Amino acid sequence: MHAYRTKTCADLRASDVGETVRLSGWVHRIRDHGGILFIDLRDHYGVTQVLCDPDSPVFKDVEKLRAEWCVRIDGTVKARDAALVNPKLPTGEIEVFATGMEVLGAAKELPLQVFGDQEYPEETRLRYRYLDLRREQMQRNMTLRSDVVRSIRQRMWDQGFREYQTPIITASSPEGARDFLVPSRLHPGKFYALPQAPQQFKQLLMVSGFDRYFQIAPCFRDEDPRADRSPTDFYQLDMEMSFVEQQDVFDTIQPVIQGVFEEFGGGKRVDATWEQISYADSALWYGTDKPDLRNPIKMQDASEHFRGSGFAIFAKLLEQEGTEVRAIPAPTGGSRKFCDRMNAFAQKEGLPGMGYIFWRDQGEGIEAAGPLAKNIGPERTEAIRQQLGLGIGDAAFFLGGKPEAFERVAGRARTVIGDELGLTEQDRYAFAWIVDFPMYEKDDEGGIDFSHNPFSMPQGGRAALDGDPLKVLGFQYDLACNGYELISGAIRNHKPEIMFKAFELAGYGEEEVRKRFGGMVNAFQYGAPPHGGCAAGIDRIVMLLAEEENIREVILFPMNQRAEDLMMDAPSDPTPAQLRELRLRVLPPES
Amino acid sequence: MHAYRTKTCADLRASDVGETVRLSGWVHRIRDHGGILFIDLRDHYGVTQVLCDPDSPVFKDVEKLRAEWCVRIDGTVKARDAALVNPKLPTGEIEVFATGMEVLGAAKELPLQVFGDQEYPEETRLRYRYLDLRREQMQRNMTLRSDVVRSIRQRMWDQGFREYQTPIITASSPEGARDFLVPSRLHPGKFYALPQAPQQFKQLLMVSGFDRYFQIAPCFRDEDPRADRSPTDFYQLDMEMSFVEQQDVFDTIQPVIQGVFEEFGGGKRVDATWEQISYADSALWYGTDKPDLRNPIKMQDASEHFRGSGFAIFAKLLEQEGTEVRAIPAPTGGSRKFCDRMNAFAQKEGLPGMGYIFWRDQGEGIEAAGPLAKNIGPERTEAIRQQLGLGIGDAAFFLGGKPEAFERVAGRARTVIGDELGLTEQDRYAFAWIVDFPMYEKDDEGGIDFSHNPFSMPQGGRAALDGDPLKVLGFQYDLACNGYELISGAIRNHKPEIMFKAFELAGYGEEEVRKRFGGMVNAFQYGAPPHGGCAAGIDRIVMLLAEEENIREVILFPMNQRAEDLMMDAPSDPTPAQLRELRLRVLPPES
Repeated sequence: MHAYRTKTCADLRASDVGETVRLSGWVHRIRDHGGILFIDLRDHYGVTQVLCDPDSPVFKDVEKLRAEWCVRIDGTVKARDAALVNPKLPTGEIEVFATGMEVLGAAKELPLQVFGDQEYPEETRLRYRYLDLRREQMQRNMTLRSDVVRSIRQRMWDQGFREYQTPIITASSPEGARDFLVPSRLHPGKFYALPQAPQQFKQLLMVSGFDRYFQIAPCFRDEDPRADRSPTDFYQLDMEMSFVEQQDVFDTIQPVIQGVFEEFGGGKRVDATWEQISYADSALWYGTDKPDLRNPIKMQDASEHFRGSGFAIFAKLLEQEGTEVRAIPAPTGGSRKFCDRMNAFAQKEGLPGMGYIFWRDQGEGIEAAGPLAKNIGPERTEAIRQQLGLGIGDAAFFLGGKPEAFERVAGRARTVIGDELGLTEQDRYAFAWIVDFPMYEKDDEGGIDFSHNPFSMPQGGRAALDGDPLKVLGFQYDLACNGYELISGAIRNHKPEIMFKAFELAGYGEEEVRKRFGGMVNAFQYGAPPHGGCAAGIDRIVMLLAEEENIREVILFPMNQRAEDLMMDAPSDPTPAQLRELRLRVLPPES
Repeated sequence: MHAYRTKTCADLRASDVGETVRLSGWVHRIRDHGGILFIDLRDHYGVTQVLCDPDSPVFKDVEKLRAEWCVRIDGTVKARDAALVNPKLPTGEIEVFATGMEVLGAAKELPLQVFGDQEYPEETRLRYRYLDLRREQMQRNMTLRSDVVRSIRQRMWDQGFREYQTPIITASSPEGARDFLVPSRLHPGKFYALPQAPQQFKQLLMVSGFDRYFQIAPCFRDEDPRADRSPTDFYQLDMEMSFVEQQDVFDTIQPVIQGVFEEFGGGKRVDATWEQISYADSALWYGTDKPDLRNPIKMQDASEHFRGSGFAIFAKLLEQEGTEVRAIPAPTGGSRKFCDRMNAFAQKEGLPGMGYIFWRDQGEGIEAAGPLAKNIGPERTEAIRQQLGLGIGDAAFFLGGKPEAFERVAGRARTVIGDELGLTEQDRYAFAWIVDFPMYEKDDEGGIDFSHNPFSMPQGGRAALDGDPLKVLGFQYDLACNGYELISGAIRNHKPEIMFKAFELAGYGEEEVRKRFGGMVNAFQYGAPPHGGCAAGIDRIVMLLAEEENIREVILFPMNQRAEDLMMDAPSDPTPAQLRELRLRVLPPES
């Protein structure tokens, strides 16, 4: 007989009754029913009920067991009485009468119960992560993560990609965040960096002729803590392809992502049509570049209805250049109570408020109500109603000013309205490609800087860079899903002369570019193919599928929000010998 | 038509003749045959011959192309004349007559030719790795590596394992080598470490109840450069299982490794029977704990034949305690010339020489020859011959002293003898488990220290630790293949009381153990299951399959032997701002 088990705790069925078995696992729960002991024995695969009474030769030993002791049980499979069958448990038809027992690993008093749903502070959970991970939800999240990554890999191979591993101890990769540095012992005073993403390496792989690359890649960013991101490392599905245009990348990655959501989405509807929305339209319609399309509300420009109208605030505002009034239609939101609540929401967000109109019928046909309606009169309100396609029982909210100033609040208002009115579908994953990102933006000092990835190919190529930089769009794209950015990518700028010009517009001279991105720029001088790709956040995908809102629920051993691992004691003090070898001195806090 | 290609350079066949196609790739070679240009156009998938003559509208442009320019070619598929068909090329029946061409990426003068077999210094290859990687052999090695890793993953899943990712920015993991440190910005003066292996995390996963874990895991060791290892990071197949004994681990991993070698071994014979050889026997028989079993030579203890014999050197030597004389049988090595050459080999290795006997028949039946034979006389030589099972035309070599002192040289002599006599099979992968490693050894100061992994379970458990530490064996094992160590693993010591005792024997108090391995030791107090596993070197496996002897031939972007990446310029100087944020100062060389 095997030293530890002949079956797992998920295996036994009614057909096994009479068998002698050996199980190993943890004491999930132990109950004493009038001198008869019932143990729920748990392993990774399931739970089996173990029974022990004074007739058992090991009764005295079993009596001593406590929760989370790891034990080996020998016994005989018995059928449960019909009344005691547990239909929720795959092993619910049987129980095992213990005839032998060995304690494999005893447990001290538990700082955290595995059985039950008790909540614990995050610090406790992370310090005793090995207990926390035994809990059902965590076992489920971690196996889900593993299965999702496997499925992604399989789907990438099916698309003709190979996985290649790029260096982890390498040079700084300027992705906009802060690098983690690694001091070199062989070259004291010099430092390696951990890659923020394998961006340069994957582009070098294309120059090397590998055609289709992917990697479930660890990425490292020394970022300030935030609830929804890991303060140290995270994983992304990183991919790149040669000889492609934007649509090729979309056609390649959509089946992968859609397939994963269909496989693991728990039956939720997964959109098969992925609309392409320009960055500008997304800002107008949804107030964000990662819209939640489960929410049907689409904002509209309503400026013309307020220009020269009796609503002085908007009328005056619209006299300034660059201003607009935008409408948030709110179907079924047509009550004063709801409108006032939304107005209060806007005030909480720091705006003076949100104007609104709602439509009702008090027996005399459709009527526009609310103070704003009175100010602009029935003709204009009717034109608004028609533009927005609203009717009795509906409402619309209005925000005015420079779009940059109110777009984000408008986006949040849209979300709240969709949620509160129950318009946002729940059991659905809705995807859209956001495209046509501007290459440049004005920085705080009024200069021109890259707005996103400096390595993207400008639409229109070299010629486009001779006009107004702020009008240049890039072949750059994001995938939005349910309000999150799941993917970001671009067709790359593989031509050195276009790249130098693009950087020049943002104020970087050729020398600076060569210094910062030398590896890649040099490579592009030796026959670079057109190429593009994207990266998808693994943690984010798993969070969405697991319906978790904290990234630490889908990572095995995450850091806490102060970037510490209390279980392993990291970071910790180096030894003097280590510092000496690296020729480093730690300066006191005051210096 | 697609912007870049309708077919790859490996696609076209005779059945495509007449089709209009678009190809993209690199100019592998360009030849001018009396005004007709032939281009071998290469992409990741293959090579297609492109033809261009003055009738083509793009002749003038094609004339300007040079090797490694990246181009798009439009053209018509033509059948080659029967005499010009190239049977070695899948596309060898056709060629493409160019009617359109676009330069996608021009190339400067090449520091390294992709076409042909010219050798380049390693520095050149690494600095222009993107060109080096375009070469056929490198494309083959890298895709092999990718395919091997994929196959390993698939096979692990098939064995019921899931892949889980463990932290990379974490705490020091004392594996015997030097850690790479990562300074913490949020906790200035404190450092993270990159894991030398996920050893502690995989054991924590077992304590967390995950039962079967694997990971293609990046590992980091700040090691001094050596040709056969990466000076920074490398990958291993890391695996761990709960509720298992040593044989379970063997039974689980053998099908994975054997399967991979069968799949990618190019038809070489892959042993299906993996002998288990004790560490002591391996030292005796092969002079190493990573024997090459393709070599049939098995050394033997021949001490009794020399004790009190007329060969004074050995006879005297054997009077000292702990000495032995060992024989290396050399079938077919029975010539003075060969024996003298081996003797010279031993002298080159720093020994006074190797005694030998060889057997011949000069017409008077079998006769033992050589000076040693004369010294010990016919009876003893005959007993030796019978023990070693040798005959006419064979030889045997002898080394004496304390085994520790000559075992390694004996092992190397065995290798040379096997190679020179053609005894070592070439087209074969031969595997053996080396088991029963001693837990402890004497350190340089005569104290007791762990000889290998301190976390292994001693055979005999707690009781075994009460006797002579040097006699304690561990449940620890290596897999040897063709003279390399492919796998190392152990059944772990999961019981805190046995662990503390094991460390005590090596001179580490409980407090020290808690300080150094706190995360794991704490976890073991909360119901730890018995568990064990192993790790297999991915780079090593791929090297063996690719028949490469330098690890940099199977890594995409390796460091050079000074741990530098000249292409990416790593390591490099940090900025003053970075050092300030980390509160570090680099000390001048003299301090």
